[in-house]
Amino acid sequence: MGSIPTMNDSITPTITLVVSCPDKTGIVAAVANYISELGGSLMESNHHTDSRDRWFFMRNVIDTSTMSVSVDVFEKDFMPIADEFQMNWHVRDNASRQKVILLASKASHCLTDLLYRWKAGELLCDIPCVISNHENLRSMVEWHGIPFHHIPVPKNDKSEAFAKTAEVISRHGADCIVLARYMQILPPDLCEEYRGRVINIHHSFLPSFIGADPYQKAYDRGVKLIGATSHYVTEDLDEGPIIEQDVIRVSHSCDRADMVRLGRDVERAVLSRGVLYHLQDRVIIHGNKTVVFS
Amino acid sequence: MGSIPTMNDSITPTITLVVSCPDKTGIVAAVANYISELGGSLMESNHHTDSRDRWFFMRNVIDTSTMSVSVDVFEKDFMPIADEFQMNWHVRDNASRQKVILLASKASHCLTDLLYRWKAGELLCDIPCVISNHENLRSMVEWHGIPFHHIPVPKNDKSEAFAKTAEVISRHGADCIVLARYMQILPPDLCEEYRGRVINIHHSFLPSFIGADPYQKAYDRGVKLIGATSHYVTEDLDEGPIIEQDVIRVSHSCDRADMVRLGRDVERAVLSRGVLYHLQDRVIIHGNKTVVFS
Amino acid sequence: MGSIPTMNDSITPTITLVVSCPDKTGIVAAVANYISELGGSLMESNHHTDSRDRWFFMRNVIDTSTMSVSVDVFEKDFMPIADEFQMNWHVRDNASRQKVILLASKASHCLTDLLYRWKAGELLCDIPCVISNHENLRSMVEWHGIPFHHIPVPKNDKSEAFAKTAEVISRHGADCIVLARYMQILPPDLCEEYRGRVINIHHSFLPSFIGADPYQKAYDRGVKLIGATSHYVTEDLDEGPIIEQDVIRVSHSCDRADMVRLGRDVERAVLSRGVLYHLQDRVIIHGNKTVVFS
Amino acid sequence: MGSIPTMNDSITPTITLVVSCPDKTGIVAAVANYISELGGSLMESNHHTDSRDRWFFMRNVIDTSTMSVSVDVFEKDFMPIADEFQMNWHVRDNASRQKVILLASKASHCLTDLLYRWKAGELLCDIPCVISNHENLRSMVEWHGIPFHHIPVPKNDKSEAFAKTAEVISRHGADCIVLARYMQILPPDLCEEYRGRVINIHHSFLPSFIGADPYQKAYDRGVKLIGATSHYVTEDLDEGPIIEQDVIRVSHSCDRADMVRLGRDVERAVLSRGVLYHLQDRVIIHGNKTVVFS
Repeated sequence: MGSIPTMNDSITPTITLVVSCPDKTGIVAAVANYISELGGSLMESNHHTDSRDRWFFMRNVIDTSTMSVSVDVFEKDFMPIADEFQMNWHVRDNASRQKVILLASKASHCLTDLLYRWKAGELLCDIPCVISNHENLRSMVEWHGIPFHHIPVPKNDKSEAFAKTAEVISRHGADCIVLARYMQILPPDLCEEYRGRVINIHHSFLPSFIGADPYQKAYDRGVKLIGATSHYVTEDLDEGPIIEQDVIRVSHSCDRADMVRLGRDVERAVLSRGVLYHLQDRVIIHGNKTVVFS
Repeated sequence: MGSIPTMNDSITPTITLVVSCPDKTGIVAAVANYISELGGSLMESNHHTDSRDRWFFMRNVIDTSTMSVSVDVFEKDFMPIADEFQMNWHVRDNASRQKVILLASKASHCLTDLLYRWKAGELLCDIPCVISNHENLRSMVEWHGIPFHHIPVPKNDKSEAFAKTAEVISRHGADCIVLARYMQILPPDLCEEYRGRVINIHHSFLPSFIGADPYQKAYDRGVKLIGATSHYVTEDLDEGPIIEQDVIRVSHSCDRADMVRLGRDVERAVLSRGVLYHLQDRVIIHGNKTVVFS
Repeated sequence: MGSIPTMNDSITPTITLVVSCPDKTGIVAAVANYISELGGSLMESNHHTDSRDRWFFMRNVIDTSTMSVSVDVFEKDFMPIADEFQMNWHVRDNASRQKVILLASKASHCLTDLLYRWKAGELLCDIPCVISNHENLRSMVEWHGIPFHHIPVPKNDKSEAFAKTAEVISRHGADCIVLARYMQILPPDLCEEYRGRVINIHHSFLPSFIGADPYQKAYDRGVKLIGATSHYVTEDLDEGPIIEQDVIRVSHSCDRADMVRLGRDVERAVLSRGVLYHLQDRVIIHGNKTVVFS
Repeated sequence: MGSIPTMNDSITPTITLVVSCPDKTGIVAAVANYISELGGSLMESNHHTDSRDRWFFMRNVIDTSTMSVSVDVFEKDFMPIADEFQMNWHVRDNASRQKVILLASKASHCLTDLLYRWKAGELLCDIPCVISNHENLRSMVEWHGIPFHHIPVPKNDKSEAFAKTAEVISRHGADCIVLARYMQILPPDLCEEYRGRVINIHHSFLPSFIGADPYQKAYDRGVKLIGATSHYVTEDLDEGPIIEQDVIRVSHSCDRADMVRLGRDVERAVLSRGVLYHLQDRVIIHGNKTVVFS
């Protein structure tokens, strides 16, 4: 059983303010005062203090229907407070939608689940296109009304393919990239450019079974649960900050093929939850870990 | 975490023999001898003895590649054993596929999941058509290459609609009917004709919240988990034999709409598992309960 | 998998401030200002707005080591703010420990688990005594250094027994009463006197199987999961506000005795979590439901 | 949610027959015939075929109340069948109880849970003694009526301590040794002598976080679930055949101490289930993996 984020899908106009900064007395008071004085109303508020690092994290969803100023003015006038507390922060107008580009390979389960949730209104975002190194999912993607780009990635020289991929992503102005079982290692410059905005699904309970064919490794080790992990991509493969994980029970009667099949259900659930948390600004990266206000 | 059935999707020719009968010494020996003497090989075997009712249940998956007789002869020659032990039994040739007709209403989540699993090869069956009382899912169904019948069910007089539904089902020769959030109560004669072969999903953890709008009832009661139940349809609404159930955690921050959204994930998982178990002959109905060899 | 409360068991002096009141702009700002101006530091803060009832809930754990006033002064000076916002509120000094009286019958599993967690330092409270209508758990309780009162409850006339029970509870000045499978219905006046402070464990996933012998009912209905519910006791049996619930999988091979055995593990976990949440002031009762900041 | 073994704790006299051998047509028939001809009745029967290794596994619980011969004769006369199929096998008379010696260190949670289940009749075995390298759990163990041996294990030279430990184990004629968070690495000769009969609990979801302080490692990596693993001890630390695993959700708000506390609940559950499966002959070791008929 995973976590329980609520949806901000109502008609009420809202903004989300996300803050992390060195812990200090008075941060909550300063921010709450600022919001309250402008007539904003707190709909959802989460705090976390990392007492080891003395670091503070906060996410506020603010009803702006009674606010006396525009979002732009709210943002500009917040700067002195942000400076005073050395905040890493951003404000998102929840009326706007992030652009999410999905990268896939042959396997359909993660992509299908993301598109189903997008169509059902669970994932509030725009999907400008899907990029795949195979053709087989084209008609499924296009049935959803989403452009499909087939960019094969040859084994011997991938640079041209990745250049083209980067170009497509850049042209659409992606806010976030989701590797929905893309099965390719992105080049370092792309990882760097979209740092903290590329989400991958690894088909094991990390850090177990890093690298290739984790289900074979799980089968060989005789584990009784298999899992999946959604995480931000960094230059170190399978080592990035973990967003979400889950597991499913297997038994001696499961061979590798059974694990692959059962694992698909966990993979798609864990990736969809990870993407949902990211789009709702519930995830704050801190070093190689995440704070997830789910 | 649900159960762990393995798939019999290999090329090996197999049959499944399902038996229930009064418990008695020697049943397993008699059946195992019969299979062994014909050169059949047990690939999977499950037994259960209900010690209160003195009733015995068995499911055998048999590799027939080395069997000296055809499936027909196997079936015919098994009759004396079946008679001796007063067995309720059947044999299925796993090369053949059952015909499953899906009935849906407006909600897409259960239907989408069943069709995804069917396309992915997880649900080995034929789907001759989908019947719905609404038009909105037509293009999704037809994209899968499956005929879509729109049969509206007017509130005041449903008899004509159900007659037409029965006719479509009958024409296709359905082995099994799945109510994928159909939201209509089937007429008693249809329930009776397909007794033990109509599977419904109820959007609560039965017997909690029987009847209409279980999520509202769950919200009003303040429960901390919500669930779903797949069961065989009988004339008593929400009272039929339960095949599978599961739950998901909710909190005070979830309103009815959040529960509906979170519940969709449990509903589709529980219905898909229920249908899978049924198609693999893992479910034996006994009174108002089921034995599920998952 | 249940929820994840963190422990406030460090040496840092803290107080917990719990508030519920009509929702209004400026509550968080007013409270955070008050705390900040006195030099208090927020260690943990949870908010919830019930948008249907327009009601606001808040729990703050405050580090008082740098606070310029005593807890008493903090409490007294908070009153004007509380009045302004019509708050239902309390402050607890976490250096003090609540007095919890446990009532049990013959079954040991819930009592054993609570005492184990108390001894392990997970449940920070004082346990002045255990009251039981049977003798069999005396030596176990006394081994923990806790007085044991045997008060038999005869079937025909329970009034004297309950009078004696009330007297013992009153003499010890209990803050909270836990019915650890006590199997007796408390008289209405005791329920009323300790309203919101008597926690019971019901051995089913409420509202399923209200009343006697829920495992037999679960067996008869053929459910695939059994559960347990910890809730506050009200005059309506099994109808009080739910604090926590969980389930465990059962199968056709489980008879009533197996369910009883498996259910014990869920019961003790669900009761212990419920008591922990209560002691940490994580639970706010609102009508017949609870807000649980776990 | 773990697995669901039923208890064979009734008064009916039973034996358990466990078999593993190369897969071949006719094994089940031969065994079922043998049992049936002697008048034995199958109460529970589990099969598994490892199709990759072509190996067969079977566990039968047999009601012997109507059997025409004694258990000894049953066992002796089974030998020709066992030889024919090259079986690795044993028969256990369930009236007899295995002797289980528990080794612990300072932490009480696993030991307490095992002793609670033993006292509650869930773990049917004799516990001749508990051995610990610390004194602190003595009164708890002795309260259960079980002898307690304090054998300190000095850091610099452990050989004498382990010799004494081996002597105590040998004197009591242990069938099985359970390391209930013993925190010491047993010497190779003891591992070898009790191969397949020493059960350890590792406080991580193996193969994650092998070695010391897995909770610190889990905290540092930022995982969202922590787990525990019960496994048979081999000379390779944390590499032995896994019996059972489970996990619990953690969040960014959990520090190492929170993980230790939450982990205790998983550790005790996973160890108790592992020991239960072992005592009920539900576990068959095959290479470095296990078949668990739970």
